[in-house]
Amino acid sequence: MSQDPLVVFTPSGKRGRFPVGTPVLTAARQLGVDLDSVCGGRGICSKCQITPSYGEFPKHGVTVAADALSEWNAVEERYDQKRGLKSGRRLGCQATVQGDIVIDVPPESQVHRQVVRKAATARVIEMDPATRLFYVEVEEPDMHEPTGDLERLARALRTQWDIPAIDTDFAALQTLQRVLRKGHWKITVALYKASDSATPRLVAAWPGLHETGLYGLAIDLGSTTIAAHLTSLETGQVVASSGIMNPQIRFGEDLMSRVSYAMMNPGGDAEMTRAAREAIDTLARDIAAEAQVDPSLILETVFVCNPVMHHLLLGIDPVELGQAPFALATSGPLELSAAELGLAALRPSARIYILPCIAGHVGADAAAVALSEEPGKSQDLVLVVDVGTNAEILLGNTTRVLACSSPTGPAFEGAQISSGQRAAPGAIEAIRIDPVTKEPRFRVIGCDLWSDEDGFWDRTAETGITGICGSGIIEAVAELRLAGLLDEGGLIGSAEQTGTTRCVPEGRTHAYLIHDATAEGGPRITVTQGDIRAIQLAKSALYAGARLLMDEMGVDTVDRVVLAGAFGAHISPLHAMVLGMIPDVPLDKVTSAGNAAGTGARIALCNTASRREIEATVREITKVETAIEPKFQEHFVAANAIPHKTDPFPELAKIVTLPKVAFNTGGDREGGGRRRRRA
Amino acid sequence: MSQDPLVVFTPSGKRGRFPVGTPVLTAARQLGVDLDSVCGGRGICSKCQITPSYGEFPKHGVTVAADALSEWNAVEERYDQKRGLKSGRRLGCQATVQGDIVIDVPPESQVHRQVVRKAATARVIEMDPATRLFYVEVEEPDMHEPTGDLERLARALRTQWDIPAIDTDFAALQTLQRVLRKGHWKITVALYKASDSATPRLVAAWPGLHETGLYGLAIDLGSTTIAAHLTSLETGQVVASSGIMNPQIRFGEDLMSRVSYAMMNPGGDAEMTRAAREAIDTLARDIAAEAQVDPSLILETVFVCNPVMHHLLLGIDPVELGQAPFALATSGPLELSAAELGLAALRPSARIYILPCIAGHVGADAAAVALSEEPGKSQDLVLVVDVGTNAEILLGNTTRVLACSSPTGPAFEGAQISSGQRAAPGAIEAIRIDPVTKEPRFRVIGCDLWSDEDGFWDRTAETGITGICGSGIIEAVAELRLAGLLDEGGLIGSAEQTGTTRCVPEGRTHAYLIHDATAEGGPRITVTQGDIRAIQLAKSALYAGARLLMDEMGVDTVDRVVLAGAFGAHISPLHAMVLGMIPDVPLDKVTSAGNAAGTGARIALCNTASRREIEATVREITKVETAIEPKFQEHFVAANAIPHKTDPFPELAKIVTLPKVAFNTGGDREGGGRRRRRA
Repeated sequence: MSQDPLVVFTPSGKRGRFPVGTPVLTAARQLGVDLDSVCGGRGICSKCQITPSYGEFPKHGVTVAADALSEWNAVEERYDQKRGLKSGRRLGCQATVQGDIVIDVPPESQVHRQVVRKAATARVIEMDPATRLFYVEVEEPDMHEPTGDLERLARALRTQWDIPAIDTDFAALQTLQRVLRKGHWKITVALYKASDSATPRLVAAWPGLHETGLYGLAIDLGSTTIAAHLTSLETGQVVASSGIMNPQIRFGEDLMSRVSYAMMNPGGDAEMTRAAREAIDTLARDIAAEAQVDPSLILETVFVCNPVMHHLLLGIDPVELGQAPFALATSGPLELSAAELGLAALRPSARIYILPCIAGHVGADAAAVALSEEPGKSQDLVLVVDVGTNAEILLGNTTRVLACSSPTGPAFEGAQISSGQRAAPGAIEAIRIDPVTKEPRFRVIGCDLWSDEDGFWDRTAETGITGICGSGIIEAVAELRLAGLLDEGGLIGSAEQTGTTRCVPEGRTHAYLIHDATAEGGPRITVTQGDIRAIQLAKSALYAGARLLMDEMGVDTVDRVVLAGAFGAHISPLHAMVLGMIPDVPLDKVTSAGNAAGTGARIALCNTASRREIEATVREITKVETAIEPKFQEHFVAANAIPHKTDPFPELAKIVTLPKVAFNTGGDREGGGRRRRRA
Repeated sequence: MSQDPLVVFTPSGKRGRFPVGTPVLTAARQLGVDLDSVCGGRGICSKCQITPSYGEFPKHGVTVAADALSEWNAVEERYDQKRGLKSGRRLGCQATVQGDIVIDVPPESQVHRQVVRKAATARVIEMDPATRLFYVEVEEPDMHEPTGDLERLARALRTQWDIPAIDTDFAALQTLQRVLRKGHWKITVALYKASDSATPRLVAAWPGLHETGLYGLAIDLGSTTIAAHLTSLETGQVVASSGIMNPQIRFGEDLMSRVSYAMMNPGGDAEMTRAAREAIDTLARDIAAEAQVDPSLILETVFVCNPVMHHLLLGIDPVELGQAPFALATSGPLELSAAELGLAALRPSARIYILPCIAGHVGADAAAVALSEEPGKSQDLVLVVDVGTNAEILLGNTTRVLACSSPTGPAFEGAQISSGQRAAPGAIEAIRIDPVTKEPRFRVIGCDLWSDEDGFWDRTAETGITGICGSGIIEAVAELRLAGLLDEGGLIGSAEQTGTTRCVPEGRTHAYLIHDATAEGGPRITVTQGDIRAIQLAKSALYAGARLLMDEMGVDTVDRVVLAGAFGAHISPLHAMVLGMIPDVPLDKVTSAGNAAGTGARIALCNTASRREIEATVREITKVETAIEPKFQEHFVAANAIPHKTDPFPELAKIVTLPKVAFNTGGDREGGGRRRRRA
């Protein structure tokens, strides 16, 4: 039989016949099988490792003989001795086809491998990084035919990698000569390809075969914190995660006070830009040090952020975002270099990608949530809420996606709450109030026991009980309502009205005492009437925003709710529903997506095609501006009641019965309907 | 007769029929007639002025009636009152076609107008600037349909100018919002289009109609001086020219000593880069101030320079250029922004274009000479010599162009000459020695009288006679040879041998005394034997380089010689030939091209297509490396004699007879054949 041997690749199933002697890498390339190689088949990078399978494969109609691949050659022997080749593995560029063969490409050898997130959701990221490594051997300069080093490198990429042309980052050019000579004309270059059709851009070069990796940063630049994931651009693995406070806080706690700062102080925007960039530099250096990665190996950074942070990062005065019509300088995606963005910790030629903004109040962070949660691919109608100082809200299914932002203010983060504090050890994060005794029990961050369990006080002695964090205050308010200590209008009852001395007078109103540590020099932790009002304002804004999108969609209910944001991960769905933060759905239809914006940034970092995808999605999203919708105010006022003045919560009613209490004795109600300024 | 009116445009001769009522600008655009417009036909920029012609035009077969164009309209009236419209002129966007008409487009209304240089040569520059202005009216932001300001600007360019897409300079983006609001959404943008197929790049924006011009700098970055021409990118006119000393001189007089400085001092290259960029900034600010032009209106800069300056400008260590094989980091053209190049005087988004280098010793300055002098378009064989510290030499005709550089050293510039000085008032620039009396007469810079003319001494009293500049020393050596005071081998005779007391002993050799001002406290100006040796080395290197190219071309003679460079403009062809600097040709075939490198830079600045042209030319030029050609040394030694040991100079012999003298009395000859290091 004169037929060429059949080569079957798994897991792709791609197959073809190749002449005896064809290297497996060559066969893979011709079939379009995803098999990595940095050195171009020279047997030095080991990226093209494959696992041959022997025996009967009825599924493929193949019988693989023991000699279906060439014997180990000297290159493989040497590599195995030096580095060790996993049992059963071969180098795809060295092993040649001798007979019918089934070849498995293990995930480590795939460029487009899939990275499964640790989190609960099934979303996987397919690797498709914009930056790739190419090992080349460049001709030495010749006086008789003088050409520049760069031109000879371009020629080598053309002949050795079929890359017809490259652009060159100026900073990369400045160091090229040294690298070429240090590598004795054998170097590895990193080429960045913005899109399928773009000309690859030379961004870095190293002498010889570069084996110390290639990294990217996914940065969620928030108003309060800046969080980064240092990610391998080869494997997609997060090698370190870290966060830092946004130093712009000294110019204003919330976004609007920062915009005001820029308005009132000439050069104030530049000051804030400098502060943010310096913090990013610090974060980049710290996270690289933590992972023991040279910062010069960070070749890409993806940013997600709200529009004000977006402009301040870019060095654009955010003043237009502080007033109607909230015009962005640009809503499109941005691609630039670390040098252009003035980031000193990174290689000047490192590429920066900033996701597009959806609207003047709905930023690249919301776009990242959309990329991560994909409401537009959901069959059922999903409401995605990213809870923070501003809530970004997405509503959609396969027919349509809507977006808005709503000015919830910082109450959900424990700010502007009398005993509020940031989530840190010692902060009450969960609380239950006995409906009969009206006594509380609680849990604090740093200890997994409840306060009525044995050992709680010993275990928390070091941190003490210091305050209430965002999720704690939501539970506290909801528990007060469930225990009949708080009425629908949001009034805390007096000790007389409620029958518990935990309800203590505080001026003309009442507060609920959770824990008094003053005897030990600690704080007295209460939920005051003012705290209730702050939470009411926040939750009303959130609910009103969601309701506005539901109006626009023409629906009264949604099928499921996704809570995004680091805070969203800690919110108890039951308590959120009692509070009326989110529309009524069965409790098991409320899920947490964790830091969806950060996940979106990671996806964009690891998968170039996803950038085009979210750019297209953002263009198609229907933007709803809460500030100018008259119905927003109406929804806001109706949502002030706990859980709601008019909307029924039938799913909630199936689980709990809210006590019908009313503590308003006819006195003035203070401020419950006050509309918060945008923040 | 129902035929549409015929419209004939001059000087293009383009013609077509258009319905009554068609604006002239519209007709011009449809026919592809070169008629400028910045405002897009809104009647505010006045760039589209045309001159209608009336009466009989047998050549065009047209009779133009008095009412062939519409009457003046309100827009034209207003414009005329406000700015004044030249007699007979109309605004092409306002005047509409009413009947057969002949329309002249004056040069000022042509984008591609031709700019005639002041210099003698007939070369004209056709305007085809990369940067153009576009006036647009941008939609205001709308909360209901939120899009970024940049995206709305892009849309306006699409709908109002048929520009499908733009790239945006990051620095331009940062100021866009302010400009849009200041201009009440009517702005003028400058778009830079690197080539026909490139996406235009937004580099600047101004509120309203921008009327204060658009400028470019053509910079010749020499080792000794940096010269700049500030040029209007609209008219092509040079509005100011200025020069400044290259401050790198403090790191080394010649190129090789600067390369050595970089080798010996860590960070020395960065120091020199900083010095050059600061000088360029100073020059840019000064020249803009001189022309009363806001430096922010300089949107393009073209650089020409030798390879060492090229690398130092770019911040690339020039060390490779100091040793074989003289490898350039890149030989290709470069395009970057002022921010990338660290030029602070210019708008950060201003575009920089640097011409390609030909080889490691033949830089972008030689490429600019090739662009200006076009040896490849010459029917006869032309030798182009750019004389400086290094001589760049081009030889070619329509079949082929060759290039090399030759290390002449600084003697031609008056350096390393005992009485040498830079060209400045008081320097002897021309000299004649009477063949009978052996007495000299001379002319100095700053006075047009000869020293034997009445009034010379009064007129030069202020400056005095201070030394000899480059052209003066060439004439002096040649005149010594013509007067029989110097033999073919380059020896100055003694007083006894020559019969003149002007030949004075100086150590074991002799010198010729030109002028002794020591009595008045001035210098004693002589030509020493050492000076003769320095000039011999320089001229031998130059001639040997030319000869090497002639070998490569397979010829013994050339048809004509072009002397380029500021110095070339002052060299006397006769004296250069007596010296044997250049090959023998009829004297009237030796012409000066002035600062051809600077002209090349201006051409590249004003005409984008010329950049592609010179890039292609440079790729095709045959590079000859003098340092490795064994025949160079042979030619060099033979060229040491004055004019030459072996090559006949028949054309020279037709004009002058060189005295057959020989002053070598058998003693040692010192150093005449010594090979100078590259400089």
